[in-house]
Amino acid sequence: MAAVPEPGPPGELFLSEVREQPQAILRLLEHEKDFAAVAQALAERAPTAIRLVGHGTSDSAATYGTYAFGLLPGWTALRDTISLTVYYGATFDLSSSAVIALSQSGRTPDVVEYVARTRKRGALTVALTNDPDSELAAAAEATIPLSAGPERSVAASKTYMNEVAALALLAGGAAGRGKKLADGIRGVAELMAGAVGPLEQAVSAPAMAFTYVGRMYVIGRGLEFATAREVALKLTETCRVAAEPLTATDLAHGPVAALDSLFPVWTIASHDESLPAVVDGAARVRKAGATLVASGPAAAEIEDAAYRLPVPSPPLPILSPLLSVVPGQLFAAALARAKGLDPDHPEGLSKVTLAR
Amino acid sequence: MAAVPEPGPPGELFLSEVREQPQAILRLLEHEKDFAAVAQALAERAPTAIRLVGHGTSDSAATYGTYAFGLLPGWTALRDTISLTVYYGATFDLSSSAVIALSQSGRTPDVVEYVARTRKRGALTVALTNDPDSELAAAAEATIPLSAGPERSVAASKTYMNEVAALALLAGGAAGRGKKLADGIRGVAELMAGAVGPLEQAVSAPAMAFTYVGRMYVIGRGLEFATAREVALKLTETCRVAAEPLTATDLAHGPVAALDSLFPVWTIASHDESLPAVVDGAARVRKAGATLVASGPAAAEIEDAAYRLPVPSPPLPILSPLLSVVPGQLFAAALARAKGLDPDHPEGLSKVTLAR
Repeated sequence: MAAVPEPGPPGELFLSEVREQPQAILRLLEHEKDFAAVAQALAERAPTAIRLVGHGTSDSAATYGTYAFGLLPGWTALRDTISLTVYYGATFDLSSSAVIALSQSGRTPDVVEYVARTRKRGALTVALTNDPDSELAAAAEATIPLSAGPERSVAASKTYMNEVAALALLAGGAAGRGKKLADGIRGVAELMAGAVGPLEQAVSAPAMAFTYVGRMYVIGRGLEFATAREVALKLTETCRVAAEPLTATDLAHGPVAALDSLFPVWTIASHDESLPAVVDGAARVRKAGATLVASGPAAAEIEDAAYRLPVPSPPLPILSPLLSVVPGQLFAAALARAKGLDPDHPEGLSKVTLAR
Repeated sequence: MAAVPEPGPPGELFLSEVREQPQAILRLLEHEKDFAAVAQALAERAPTAIRLVGHGTSDSAATYGTYAFGLLPGWTALRDTISLTVYYGATFDLSSSAVIALSQSGRTPDVVEYVARTRKRGALTVALTNDPDSELAAAAEATIPLSAGPERSVAASKTYMNEVAALALLAGGAAGRGKKLADGIRGVAELMAGAVGPLEQAVSAPAMAFTYVGRMYVIGRGLEFATAREVALKLTETCRVAAEPLTATDLAHGPVAALDSLFPVWTIASHDESLPAVVDGAARVRKAGATLVASGPAAAEIEDAAYRLPVPSPPLPILSPLLSVVPGQLFAAALARAKGLDPDHPEGLSKVTLAR
């Protein structure tokens, strides 16, 4: 029987798992052949739709998937509405669909049920889970282990990282560029290993300043909208901040009206075609009198940011979200500590969520 | 030249437009033949994907569209990621796609651009807009006027109502049930006309109690997730509340950890297959010590709600969101008044949003 470790200080598990992410990614890459095989099966299906499903962190990663499949093989990918299939029994033609189901535990009930039903109705079903012996793995036609290793903090980090990397590998493989993506991800792991330490230092100033903040927006556009969703989720579950993810454009269509000096905004800026929209959005935020945090490889492009948390530029622009999420994770860890909260065990949550 | 009316008290325009919604719906139904023709064109395309695009209120309505098309003709519909096409130049095969673009003004730049590009690449493009002379109408192959009439409040209400009704008519027509849906919507208009007055009375108690609330969740599942998104948007833009829409299931995957007695939750409950998930979610909210508001036709099923704002049951369950949104709109109007804010002219917003 394995020895049960003594419980450490609050947030220790979460922080140690954030730090471990470069190694977690490298573990995933040991399964490069599995990814290539599943990517080929996907390509043979020539899917008219990639249907991504997951909740919480896995749903943030699914957002990344819609971009990765859209940009690499040029396929339509959607975060499917689980309730249509699981509750309402909608009768889609799934013969040219592929399903990618994401779940850390592989036990999320409606995700398992969704996979069982769509597989029966003709979809090619793929599971990405940390537990290859889970119900989800049993329900799906193909399973690739996320290989994040045991995640003991209730607030997830390395699971998200490996889900995003896994989706990049599958989409790259489907486009005949699996090797190039794998090499890029290897490069990202190295850059991340060098960036974590300095970022841990850098987040302490905004974490102190934001100790009494109750609400935030997290703004990204394009690929980085996935990052915005995941950072907002971390802030909500570990720091009890009402943090809402928004695209830079949606900000202007209503939510900007709620901003004031007590309502700061976290922005994620990358060097790609969506950057001007994020720069515009940030200007709108400043005009409303709100404090700005700028993160991401293009953090320097955001004018008048009170805090900047840049990350290195990835070898391929499409891999930017792997690096951009790290400042948000580390900030959540630091803010939780400043507020006396425990991200390892947020109130009302457990590691495996069995909510229907 | 038309006389310019004297400005009334703050929020008068918004409230009068909420009250006018039953008539707005009836105006839309005058175009039943246009809807039937476009629905037939959609059916002839036999689309593998209905791609819905819009921002703000129009994006909330698009969420309804994913359910309406999924449940009525059984088609896959998605809220497409505009940035993939407009910023990144993704090269989707659009030969079997149809696009439905939603915009009150018909001038939202990236929506207009999206329609121009997807039309050029082979998609069947349909515009739903209040302005049949707009750029959006010019860009699309087919346009159906929303017929909401002039909407002078910056915060939209009847535009949302008519967008949802229009999507129900199109999805119903595509399923060969256009007439049945039109009759159902006529019935809804009548029920709504009778419900608005009593609801205006009923929302005043929670509006007083919530005057100093800074953050809320709005919970729906299935069809009512569209309602949750629209109610959250109204609260954010008219009342400066950080209101986040969540499915009942996603609540359990993280956000529930942020709840406490200062963080109330608005629930939307309808008599359909998703109700048990909403009832479960509400129980989780109460356990976290948060105040519950229950709205929708099945408001009575939510236990321990501090406030109940039921609406009549619609003739067809799929039309429930048309009625369920009304308590949220009226509550937003009342809460804005209690806070001394003006929903007709929220700070930082204008009626036509030209943000890219």
